[in-house]
Amino acid sequence: MSQQPSTPDPALTTLVGLAAYTELAAFGLLAARSADAPDLGARQTLATAAGDSLGRQERLLGLTTVVGPGGAAAAMAPFDGVLADFDARTTPSGWAEGLLKAVVGLGVAQDLCRELAAGLADDAADFVAAVGEPRPADPATAVLAAAAAADGVLSARLALWGRRVVGEALGLVPVLLAAHPPLAELAARARAADDDGGASVQAWLVSRLTAEHTRRMDRLGLAA
Amino acid sequence: MSQQPSTPDPALTTLVGLAAYTELAAFGLLAARSADAPDLGARQTLATAAGDSLGRQERLLGLTTVVGPGGAAAAMAPFDGVLADFDARTTPSGWAEGLLKAVVGLGVAQDLCRELAAGLADDAADFVAAVGEPRPADPATAVLAAAAAADGVLSARLALWGRRVVGEALGLVPVLLAAHPPLAELAARARAADDDGGASVQAWLVSRLTAEHTRRMDRLGLAA
Repeated sequence: MSQQPSTPDPALTTLVGLAAYTELAAFGLLAARSADAPDLGARQTLATAAGDSLGRQERLLGLTTVVGPGGAAAAMAPFDGVLADFDARTTPSGWAEGLLKAVVGLGVAQDLCRELAAGLADDAADFVAAVGEPRPADPATAVLAAAAAADGVLSARLALWGRRVVGEALGLVPVLLAAHPPLAELAARARAADDDGGASVQAWLVSRLTAEHTRRMDRLGLAA
Repeated sequence: MSQQPSTPDPALTTLVGLAAYTELAAFGLLAARSADAPDLGARQTLATAAGDSLGRQERLLGLTTVVGPGGAAAAMAPFDGVLADFDARTTPSGWAEGLLKAVVGLGVAQDLCRELAAGLADDAADFVAAVGEPRPADPATAVLAAAAAADGVLSARLALWGRRVVGEALGLVPVLLAAHPPLAELAARARAADDDGGASVQAWLVSRLTAEHTRRMDRLGLAA
């Protein structure tokens, strides 16, 4: 039962599925760090951050025609399990590393989705609005930045950990593009729309994501 | 900085703190069962159920004048840690037991708060509206009922587990009333407003909560 008069762009449906799945994963990571937060204030803030992921997921799913009780799961199904390797390779030591994993993992996923959205025929602006822009005042970022600022040893350890997590996250990008041709197509169109020189699609995408990661670590007060 | 012209009822503030804290705890339990759900549909449904707890919590906190970034934590602070014993005594064996713990624990907490609300001078209707009424179509209840209906052995095990969890939850009630005089006062007033005979406040309250628990197990298709 279609909700829209026109046929939806299949690339949009794929991109929404990826974005919705990674928001659900971020919800789980943030909720877990809410549950073992060191104090009630952080516990509440991270619960709110997890709820924000669900809110973005709902807005994203609203952009597709996959509706009804099982619609969300159907949209995300192509990506089910795609983060298992990333997860197994980034087992955190302690609460702050777990929270940085959530912040970096979600951040890279959102950055990737925003970059790929530039390749959409239309709907790009609606999609980017649903994902949102990186905010320095993001609640999870603020909690983590405060914890890092208060402890120089922790801060140095988190800087190293952030490189490990972003490395594993960026390693997923070619896997995703290879497994989902609509995403590879979006990447190629987004690359073509950006006139920065002759890099390959993959090199271009990784360099964009790396630059955004540096800004994210800056917002956290951590060395990238 | 007061948001309302009149002084808030201190009993309302205490009751909101209890209800908000137990919704935060339920959020954590439901989110954890979302993370290890057996399939993507259940994972999404339980994430939504966890989000519903945050939505109720926000509406509840909106009833008090404790506002601002730290307001939620301040309202809940008197109850921080109050569920630690309950938690330690109800370590679940497996996903379905963990989900039943969340459903029963949240259910008893909501029932308790609704009963105590009858003792409020005013605001009782607003408070009960924010907590909501038990719904057979509650998403976590539906997921658990489906899992139990599909497996007779699991269903029998969950019936036993439900008795264990409700026993521990009801055991918390006198502890809460003793530690928080405004709650004991609300219980006494609620008892006085109900003309069912000569039971003590505590016996009356436990019998009301037990009856509601039987209805909850019925909705789950489990023997109470």
